[in-house]
Amino acid sequence: MHPAQTVVTGFALAILAGTALLMLPISKVGPGGGSFVDALFTATSAVCVTGLTVVDTPTYWTPFGQVVIMALIQLGGLGIMIFASLIGLVLARKLSVRSRLNTAAEAKAVGFADVRGLVRGILKITVLIEFGVFVLLGVRFMLGYGYGVGEAAWHAAFLAVSSFNNAGFALYTDNLMGFVADPFVCLPISAAIILGGLGFPVIMQLRKEFTKPLHWSMNTKLVLWGSAVLLIGGTAYITLIEWNNPATLGTLDPGARLLAGFFQSVQTRTAGFNSIDIGSMHDASWLGMDVLMFIGGGPAGTAGGIKVTTFAVLFFIMLTELRGEGSVNIFGKRLSRAVHRQAITVVLIAVAAVVAGTAVLLLLTGLDLDRVLFEAVSAFATVGLSTGITAGLPDAAKVVLVLLMFLGRLGPLTLGTAIALRERRVLYEFPKERPAIG
Amino acid sequence: MHPAQTVVTGFALAILAGTALLMLPISKVGPGGGSFVDALFTATSAVCVTGLTVVDTPTYWTPFGQVVIMALIQLGGLGIMIFASLIGLVLARKLSVRSRLNTAAEAKAVGFADVRGLVRGILKITVLIEFGVFVLLGVRFMLGYGYGVGEAAWHAAFLAVSSFNNAGFALYTDNLMGFVADPFVCLPISAAIILGGLGFPVIMQLRKEFTKPLHWSMNTKLVLWGSAVLLIGGTAYITLIEWNNPATLGTLDPGARLLAGFFQSVQTRTAGFNSIDIGSMHDASWLGMDVLMFIGGGPAGTAGGIKVTTFAVLFFIMLTELRGEGSVNIFGKRLSRAVHRQAITVVLIAVAAVVAGTAVLLLLTGLDLDRVLFEAVSAFATVGLSTGITAGLPDAAKVVLVLLMFLGRLGPLTLGTAIALRERRVLYEFPKERPAIG
Ligand SMILES: [K+]
Ligand SMILES: [K+]
Repeated sequence: MHPAQTVVTGFALAILAGTALLMLPISKVGPGGGSFVDALFTATSAVCVTGLTVVDTPTYWTPFGQVVIMALIQLGGLGIMIFASLIGLVLARKLSVRSRLNTAAEAKAVGFADVRGLVRGILKITVLIEFGVFVLLGVRFMLGYGYGVGEAAWHAAFLAVSSFNNAGFALYTDNLMGFVADPFVCLPISAAIILGGLGFPVIMQLRKEFTKPLHWSMNTKLVLWGSAVLLIGGTAYITLIEWNNPATLGTLDPGARLLAGFFQSVQTRTAGFNSIDIGSMHDASWLGMDVLMFIGGGPAGTAGGIKVTTFAVLFFIMLTELRGEGSVNIFGKRLSRAVHRQAITVVLIAVAAVVAGTAVLLLLTGLDLDRVLFEAVSAFATVGLSTGITAGLPDAAKVVLVLLMFLGRLGPLTLGTAIALRERRVLYEFPKERPAIG
Repeated sequence: MHPAQTVVTGFALAILAGTALLMLPISKVGPGGGSFVDALFTATSAVCVTGLTVVDTPTYWTPFGQVVIMALIQLGGLGIMIFASLIGLVLARKLSVRSRLNTAAEAKAVGFADVRGLVRGILKITVLIEFGVFVLLGVRFMLGYGYGVGEAAWHAAFLAVSSFNNAGFALYTDNLMGFVADPFVCLPISAAIILGGLGFPVIMQLRKEFTKPLHWSMNTKLVLWGSAVLLIGGTAYITLIEWNNPATLGTLDPGARLLAGFFQSVQTRTAGFNSIDIGSMHDASWLGMDVLMFIGGGPAGTAGGIKVTTFAVLFFIMLTELRGEGSVNIFGKRLSRAVHRQAITVVLIAVAAVVAGTAVLLLLTGLDLDRVLFEAVSAFATVGLSTGITAGLPDAAKVVLVLLMFLGRLGPLTLGTAIALRERRVLYEFPKERPAIG
């Protein structure tokens, strides 16, 4: 079986198993089990680490159901990290000799030449970061909110898993709005989200060569610079627009406004928690968040979207054109031409999926474009933020979102794989021609 | 002066002159002249052949004002056709010997090796097509609607100029809604729009080598195939969604529904007339039209948008990736790699302009995303369709639309020029690297 097929099958099986578990009466509060569509939606949202919910996680699901959700999140997050990193290894073996030397050097730099070592490394990093966040949140919940040990541990564990895996599920009906002004809750969660969203290769390189930025790969530099620009730009954009909105930031202290603006900007890389009411934000904030969510996080991590690298590559190609230069050079390295075409392919398919999904959702519901587009981008980029329409959608619309989540989580990536694995040379060349552009 | 600067200055001067003329009391019905912003908006909309209006063309402007608008449309349409075609000639002289041979051969095939011949050719084609439409419409207005000779001639002339130049201005308050079921009005106008939107190089090649499709250039083939796909797809999409909408197609005969659906699809290439009420269409129709308008028509014609060729090039690049092939081959010719980067650049800047314009319009008005996005796309792609919000916008929002129209009309094109003229070689190459995509 082709590796891309393996991972698609794996994710589909995990979702089906999760659906079955969530349909059991033991998973749902009150008599009977959850409906098929709601269970399927929740299982897909968990495995694809999206965080969109059609039912209220704390009141609809029992602790058993919540543990199932947490397990699905962890499984989905690990699955995508391992799979995407493996692709890197497979690629390294298939590339030309010269490229292979580079990639092998990079693989060596981050410390893994084989599959077992890679999986072990991913598990170690995951446990390490999640445990750190677990401790910080647990202590805060006990000292700051008077939770008992068990309650604090359970909430802290759930949030640690949900944040590092960029899932965005929480055990409060209002997600994290109760902690909007608390940096001791918001900042550890933000840190876990950002680290998970950078992607495993970047985390590993930072761990091994934090003090040697000259050794960093183009991937690491693009992800770090791109994430910094998006985080800061997003914080400024959201904070400025919402500053005086009484339904979001307007009633908070200036410091808390900045914290909440930053926290919401972090969520677009693509965790999906919310500490303010997304449904009350300005239309222009939604549009900006659409863009940020669509771009998403780093490759081979728990983030979704088209990935920071894809966007950065297109940006540098544009810059090269505007400067009239012949080849695309980024941080003193030349960008492989094959990457141009990959980036175009990923973006075109992503745009097509979001636009088609939005059109179908518009036809299925009577809702406006602003909320529907936000929902479609959020599902495709596996973000999980919503303006509040998810629970009220008809079943057909829920299924559309399920497909968008699945496609968004696996699509561009497996597609990229399929592409890279099938790379072959055409032995003849046609005469060249250039049509007019723009 | 750089040619790109010349054309930007030329368009700016034409707009300023038009603004001044439209501010004269003789241009406006009733006492006093038009306001600066309304005159500026109308002049920009006319010169950029957009067709968005903040005042009602037939009742606000006098016949003198309407003649000014018609002259501005003709000036703008000719200007963009001549300028864009000249770029082709300049490019042919700057390219490498091998490419130059191809381009020269193509230039010879369409019959022009020098600037004077080119301008004469464009004028001839323009007069020919506009006169044909003028006669057809004039006869119809006299026989079918009982107009006198003078009235019929004036309306026919205005519509002929407005349609071939893809301007979308009409002399009726309801644009062309009075002719929704009349093929003798709708079809000649559609033909003029489509021809103007194909672009001058395509028209010339069709004229000289209509029966020899094997000789057609890649540009001609891409524009023809792309336009056909978009026209038919757009007709099907709009007609299906609006079929039972009583405010648009629902009350018409089946044949008239198809005619109106086709006519509205034609408008997205980017003429901007309307024979049905755009403001009453379904949200999903608006979204589909957003996509169609954004793509627009053929290069070096009167159409706007990123151009059919740009979109087609990206589509074929994607196809090549998905097939795992090494070079992008279209209709048995290899696509120049420089074009990949040009297409990315045009699309990125277009998306950035539309998104930024939409965000600012959202902040300036209390309107919803669906209508604002439609307006921004319509302005940038110089379409002129509107859901009905243009006249009620605050002055600041009108100025944003003026900037979008100007940028959309000249931007990607002059940019493409600046790029092509500055093409130079970098004498050293950096080591190659490939970051992860998607
Ligand atoms: K998420
Ligand atoms: K137009």
